[in-house]
Amino acid sequence: MSQPRDLSPLINPKSIAVIGASNEPYKFGGRPIRYMIQAPFGGPIYPINPKEDEIQGLKAYKDIRDVGKPIDMCIITIPAPAVLGAVKACAEAGVKSLVIFSSSFAEVGGDGAVWQDEMRKVAEESGMLICGPNCLGMLTPDNWAIGTFSTMFDHGWPVPGGLTIMTQSGAVGAHILVQARDRGLGIRTWVATGNEVDVDIADCIAYGASDAETKVITAYMEGCKNPDRLITALKMAREAGKPVICMKVGSSEVGAAAAATHTASLAGADAIFDAVFKQFGVLRVHSLEEMMDVAAAALVSPLPQGRRLGVVTVSGGAGVMASDEAEKIGLDVPELPQIAQDAVKAAMPYAAARNPVDVTAMATNQFDLLQQGLEAMLEHGKVDMTMVFLSAVGFSDRIMEGLNKIFPEIRAKYPEAIMAVSMLCSDENRRKFEDNGYLVIEEMNRGLRIMEALARIREGFDQGRESDPLPALDADVRIPSKILNEHDAAELLAGVGVPYPEMKVATSADEARAAVQALGGRCVMKILSADIQHKTDIGGVKLNVSEETAADAFEAITAGARQHMPSASVDGVLVAPMAEPGVETIIGVQNDPVFGPTVMFGLGGVFVEVFKDVSFRVAPFGPGEAMRMIRELRSLPLLEGARGTKAVDLVALANMLSRLSVFAAANADRFESIDINPFVARADGGVALDAVIAPKAQNSPVVD
Amino acid sequence: MSQPRDLSPLINPKSIAVIGASNEPYKFGGRPIRYMIQAPFGGPIYPINPKEDEIQGLKAYKDIRDVGKPIDMCIITIPAPAVLGAVKACAEAGVKSLVIFSSSFAEVGGDGAVWQDEMRKVAEESGMLICGPNCLGMLTPDNWAIGTFSTMFDHGWPVPGGLTIMTQSGAVGAHILVQARDRGLGIRTWVATGNEVDVDIADCIAYGASDAETKVITAYMEGCKNPDRLITALKMAREAGKPVICMKVGSSEVGAAAAATHTASLAGADAIFDAVFKQFGVLRVHSLEEMMDVAAAALVSPLPQGRRLGVVTVSGGAGVMASDEAEKIGLDVPELPQIAQDAVKAAMPYAAARNPVDVTAMATNQFDLLQQGLEAMLEHGKVDMTMVFLSAVGFSDRIMEGLNKIFPEIRAKYPEAIMAVSMLCSDENRRKFEDNGYLVIEEMNRGLRIMEALARIREGFDQGRESDPLPALDADVRIPSKILNEHDAAELLAGVGVPYPEMKVATSADEARAAVQALGGRCVMKILSADIQHKTDIGGVKLNVSEETAADAFEAITAGARQHMPSASVDGVLVAPMAEPGVETIIGVQNDPVFGPTVMFGLGGVFVEVFKDVSFRVAPFGPGEAMRMIRELRSLPLLEGARGTKAVDLVALANMLSRLSVFAAANADRFESIDINPFVARADGGVALDAVIAPKAQNSPVVD
Repeated sequence: MSQPRDLSPLINPKSIAVIGASNEPYKFGGRPIRYMIQAPFGGPIYPINPKEDEIQGLKAYKDIRDVGKPIDMCIITIPAPAVLGAVKACAEAGVKSLVIFSSSFAEVGGDGAVWQDEMRKVAEESGMLICGPNCLGMLTPDNWAIGTFSTMFDHGWPVPGGLTIMTQSGAVGAHILVQARDRGLGIRTWVATGNEVDVDIADCIAYGASDAETKVITAYMEGCKNPDRLITALKMAREAGKPVICMKVGSSEVGAAAAATHTASLAGADAIFDAVFKQFGVLRVHSLEEMMDVAAAALVSPLPQGRRLGVVTVSGGAGVMASDEAEKIGLDVPELPQIAQDAVKAAMPYAAARNPVDVTAMATNQFDLLQQGLEAMLEHGKVDMTMVFLSAVGFSDRIMEGLNKIFPEIRAKYPEAIMAVSMLCSDENRRKFEDNGYLVIEEMNRGLRIMEALARIREGFDQGRESDPLPALDADVRIPSKILNEHDAAELLAGVGVPYPEMKVATSADEARAAVQALGGRCVMKILSADIQHKTDIGGVKLNVSEETAADAFEAITAGARQHMPSASVDGVLVAPMAEPGVETIIGVQNDPVFGPTVMFGLGGVFVEVFKDVSFRVAPFGPGEAMRMIRELRSLPLLEGARGTKAVDLVALANMLSRLSVFAAANADRFESIDINPFVARADGGVALDAVIAPKAQNSPVVD
Repeated sequence: MSQPRDLSPLINPKSIAVIGASNEPYKFGGRPIRYMIQAPFGGPIYPINPKEDEIQGLKAYKDIRDVGKPIDMCIITIPAPAVLGAVKACAEAGVKSLVIFSSSFAEVGGDGAVWQDEMRKVAEESGMLICGPNCLGMLTPDNWAIGTFSTMFDHGWPVPGGLTIMTQSGAVGAHILVQARDRGLGIRTWVATGNEVDVDIADCIAYGASDAETKVITAYMEGCKNPDRLITALKMAREAGKPVICMKVGSSEVGAAAAATHTASLAGADAIFDAVFKQFGVLRVHSLEEMMDVAAAALVSPLPQGRRLGVVTVSGGAGVMASDEAEKIGLDVPELPQIAQDAVKAAMPYAAARNPVDVTAMATNQFDLLQQGLEAMLEHGKVDMTMVFLSAVGFSDRIMEGLNKIFPEIRAKYPEAIMAVSMLCSDENRRKFEDNGYLVIEEMNRGLRIMEALARIREGFDQGRESDPLPALDADVRIPSKILNEHDAAELLAGVGVPYPEMKVATSADEARAAVQALGGRCVMKILSADIQHKTDIGGVKLNVSEETAADAFEAITAGARQHMPSASVDGVLVAPMAEPGVETIIGVQNDPVFGPTVMFGLGGVFVEVFKDVSFRVAPFGPGEAMRMIRELRSLPLLEGARGTKAVDLVALANMLSRLSVFAAANADRFESIDINPFVARADGGVALDAVIAPKAQNSPVVD
């Protein structure tokens, strides 16, 4: 894994200059200086303004090169045409990082795009980090480095802490930062990357992964220019045990990669992002609220070991509500072990003890019994997380007094237990609970969703620790640059471990009959030509061919090709035995323009065409990841033997997908797409019935 | 429609007595008196306590019969064994309604259950309304009738208003009420019905429907004892144009109705509740937070006419985020008409005008232009609702000053427009926006979900206004009490309008051959016996029978029956032509123990067995409702001609389901279940291939 770039001059600058510094405290060039004076920033501030000697009470310099002292970061907030000159001046002055607020660069095109390209060159040559242009900048509350013109500080300061917030959008990033501040979450750093001429979201995630102060990383993403850096950063975060909670927009956009092949049209860039997130343990969220919910929880709570949920409520109905939601989101509400039920019953004979445990409203008058019941669940219940529904009792001062006594005691006995409390109460009481490590949330179901997200983060970490080595392939299996016919493509893929039936190529009616005879009769015959993709349309496929009908079938197939595609180069007719039935699946590899070779798997027919029930993984991946990919399908029960059929050998399937992914990754520069459609999955491993490999730089063929 | 019960003595009591009244202000018998003195209640309070002359400063009475004045409501909060006596005393005293806090009745069984039954009789004989027992009671802030021992008032009083909150659970109901109070929602009334010995949730919803002060009804439900009353209440609310927002728990419970037939095992009580909610325009929510979100919006906002969403943002990314969520929840983000785009561009040339409209952050410095852009969208955009994403700008006092000027002006010009603003700001600024009819919510996606819910409420109302008359059936089509064989069941269902093929019954090999000949050859033959359900298992079905093979087939089928089911009464062999292919569907009617005849429809095979993709409606219903039932299926594209097949005649299908529902409702007392499995749906209307009618009071047969 490559070393991440050292972003500390940007994240933790010890000295900050401002080009375009203003005496007007509400102008873009005035705000950061005002904020840093107020905060105050823990280092020198160097305002740069050719017309002023003093800015907001600080000594000003005419030019960045006049400062004569080390400058970790320089904010640039001047009109676009002047920016490139300032960037070069900064490089000359040995500035280590820039934050460029100014806009009208690549996002408007024209001169702006040219300037931005020039900027990139300066960054590459000088090693100076550039954040932006067209960005809302950065903030590190620890030393109050404030490289942003956001107005948020007018209404309060965030507190330092362990949450690292990365965003490609300024407006959305400001929204996230303010939400985090208003929830009282401690911020490690906040960076809005804007046009990403140099520093990008992947660099930022990698920084968070290696930064000792960062506990949790949130990322708002719109796209990715450097997938290798992104994947490296995600792996680093996972290895460091730091949750990455990501909101990626664009799931409804028509994917840019929607090329002509079947596989590609199903993929779309967002589905591949989704696969990357699953593959590298990123928790993908679908709203900023969800992002903050989970981030807040992950900052204070350990991650659950599993999905077993214990529910304790003062209301039977709330217990049912919790069970409903748990089933919906995939948490188990297991019956408690008898010893736990007995202990609950011993404390509260009237309680329902099975789980959900209903201690009834009486428990709020008998705190010692409530405590005994809860501790019985924690001691003997074998649950991974606990939800306590206390309704509106928090608004009774008398009850709250009792609860504030027992809950710290429970926490002291079970310091590692993951416990959420659904309760309406004052902010003060909420904080008391939170200080004792309880997640406090009004809405129980939302609390359950948060705990489920924590479980998913944990599962992602576990995946990363799992041994899932890539299978070794014969190094000689390389895709040639010529277009392959089905026979040659199948032979190549068979070498990777994709099971194909024994096949013969016939170039005459006699050979065709001999082939059918050799293969035991009852064969399929197909026109063999790299130029013909829609074989069925031209009568190029005959099923159930016998020795008797072989010659006629050969003639009919070749005549069809001559008639309908006279210019096609025909290599003969492919003869193969009819396949035993099984579950028809579709396997594809798309060479995604962003992420490279990406394997798709799904069931054929309506499942892929109507329900789009397919899963993706970026190549290469091991058999363990392939198994998760298979298990993600909604139609999984059909592979597992629903409706009385024999279960498919999923291990063989996963091994094959994994081998195919290794092959695809090794040949990334040699193909556009690979389609194995259909692949008949069976208990004996199954068999592939077609093979299309579209080489690089060819127009992608459409499979039939 | 039956008249609802008059609940006004319970909801709007002018005088309140308390049996079990206490001088201790924090005891159950002390709290309501304390609250009503504080509030104060707008009528006389009569504490009843045999041991005291005065309670909390009020004159106390030894017995309810001593009061000697009209009593609208009496709260009873004494130990369970004494309650029945008190109830009888209240009836004697002419009390009009009771709220019984006391518990240990039906919920614990034994004596309690007997006492509760007795109570019911008193209610029936006297006409006295009883709320409870084992209930948290009621609250009507308008005159501060406080019939509850909830502790919530210790931390603040709710305000009067238009929200009627009905709940079967006290703890959950308190949670809802406190949430509503803390959001500042105006409360019309709040009733927690507990054990529902008399007044139930349906009565309460009906009250809300006919109450002039009620604008929106929320209901928390765990079950339903009186479906007719519930449906009547829901119809009333719909006709009155009052949204019913319902949280019904128990979706994960194993339905009590899970009887032996195929249909029933798929149904489960919750699926039928779900159908009822869809059918009668109830918005089903899945968390209390969602309930409050939608209730709050419905109290202030008109309902959108359709699902066309306009999005205006200060950030391109937020626009993509909105489009993602819109697609997910079924809102359209249509391209704006050119005239609207031109108008936006005229105000802000740099804006993206297609929709989402990105006015960029510059708009927050140019309020007149932002106003022009927004008004262009409202004037020309032809959208049903608008989301404005303003991010964290609300924390800039300067920007907020500008926004607080233009948004009231925009509202004044477009008083009916449904507009939400996603913005972080102070409570004070939020209220200013809300006062101008904007929905203000931090999380944009949550705001979109709220607007979608309002659209769904509107669609429910529109459904109710739609003319969807029940088809008239031949009054003679009655299910006989004897068990019908397939031929007779098919004949009966054919009379209802279910298309069956021409069928013949053969009782000899000769007749079988003649039947095949008469039907044109290529027939299916099936054993005909009301005693044999698993026909295939005993070789009782032969396909593709020709005139030549007819005699052998007859002998084989009848021999199989004799061998495997020697005691079965066999009526012969049923002969029918092989069906043309189509989409295999399954139609069932289950006589639900709660809601009565309920029609199920879905696609056959994996769709019903693996994906449980079926929809339900309670009988009877018109063809319009049947069409919605069909369109609810995830596998709908297969009926609409996905994969190049001809589309099924959905209108014919809907008409048939509607006719079947009318038939089922008319025969509600005569059958357990009806199964038409498979029904082959086609462009020509299709054909039913089986018919099983299980009569009432028989063990339900299992279809094969």
